[in-house]
Amino acid sequence: MRYHKIPDETVRRLPMYLRGLLLCREQGVRDVSSRKLSELLHISPAQIRKDLSYFGAFGTPGVGYDTAKLAKQIRGILKIDTPNKAALVGLGNLGSALLKYPGFGAYGLQISAVFDNDPGKIGKIVKKVKVEDVSKLSTLKNKNIKLGIIAVPASAAQSVADALVKAGIRGILNFAPFYLDVPKKVKVITIDIAMVLARLPYYLPASA
Amino acid sequence: MRYHKIPDETVRRLPMYLRGLLLCREQGVRDVSSRKLSELLHISPAQIRKDLSYFGAFGTPGVGYDTAKLAKQIRGILKIDTPNKAALVGLGNLGSALLKYPGFGAYGLQISAVFDNDPGKIGKIVKKVKVEDVSKLSTLKNKNIKLGIIAVPASAAQSVADALVKAGIRGILNFAPFYLDVPKKVKVITIDIAMVLARLPYYLPASA
Repeated sequence: MRYHKIPDETVRRLPMYLRGLLLCREQGVRDVSSRKLSELLHISPAQIRKDLSYFGAFGTPGVGYDTAKLAKQIRGILKIDTPNKAALVGLGNLGSALLKYPGFGAYGLQISAVFDNDPGKIGKIVKKVKVEDVSKLSTLKNKNIKLGIIAVPASAAQSVADALVKAGIRGILNFAPFYLDVPKKVKVITIDIAMVLARLPYYLPASA
Repeated sequence: MRYHKIPDETVRRLPMYLRGLLLCREQGVRDVSSRKLSELLHISPAQIRKDLSYFGAFGTPGVGYDTAKLAKQIRGILKIDTPNKAALVGLGNLGSALLKYPGFGAYGLQISAVFDNDPGKIGKIVKKVKVEDVSKLSTLKNKNIKLGIIAVPASAAQSVADALVKAGIRGILNFAPFYLDVPKKVKVITIDIAMVLARLPYYLPASA
């Protein structure tokens, strides 16, 4: 079953709900109200109810949402109910940190291929993954990998994106401070860390 | 001059405009139309004009925006026209990558204090910054540092945030997959990398 009309902003919040639900489960909570979820996640109860109603999760009045059932539903909608393999391109400081990042497992995500252009890195095994030559990105086609992570300098990001798309990648998490031109069928989400930090001074009090 | 009514979403896009303008400057472009900026940034011309009008930047009909002048204005609004120092807490894989990240300079941001709880790291000099004991966060008060970056495990994030707030930090970039409870006067932006990656499978074609 697909849910074609879920807005991007709702999709953005679904993993947050999932995290909140998993937290409830850890605490032994079986049913959770939108108000309790709201307190956990700092998202309004009305927003939560609206988001969840998009896929028919209405909860039980006076009881709330069945945490296990709702978590399963959200995983299904996000298509993370089965494992998703990702290819990482760029094993510099950030790429290395991403490869070692422990947080992906909770969402069924796994970096199972790594590429770099540094002869000193190619062939090495890091976190059980063999570093491959970035010129071999086309081999992804045979590996059923649809997700790519770009952690290369901005100057190389577009050519890496082109190669990833050619190799069948359909979703890209991009850390390069660069707008990637890709076909419409490919979803790109960019995290420009410096740009996010650059927003914070705006909120500082004038005296600071 | 303060611009109190600029929506958060506009503030979020201002660094993007700045980056586009700097790119234009690099290419020797003196004036840029909202249409040209739109092509660079993949943001609609109407949105660009609306965002910029919030602070009275209307451009010249038929000419466009003076790139140097607009870049200066945006830096002023974001309060990144003077350098901003940040304290990094957590020198694990991600924290180390952040400390070495070359992208902050473009926005006048500098990590000028680093804290960790690992005795093996405390006292070391990394990127010209001496790693301090995380129990000494209160010393930030004397350093005129108002921005903090949290790159510690989720289990430690809240206590670090509490200590940062106590030490006068008013803006936090949080990488821990955890909702931080802070006073209203403190602005928190969380980048949960795994959660962002977890959104990508949703957009994959059903056959994938």
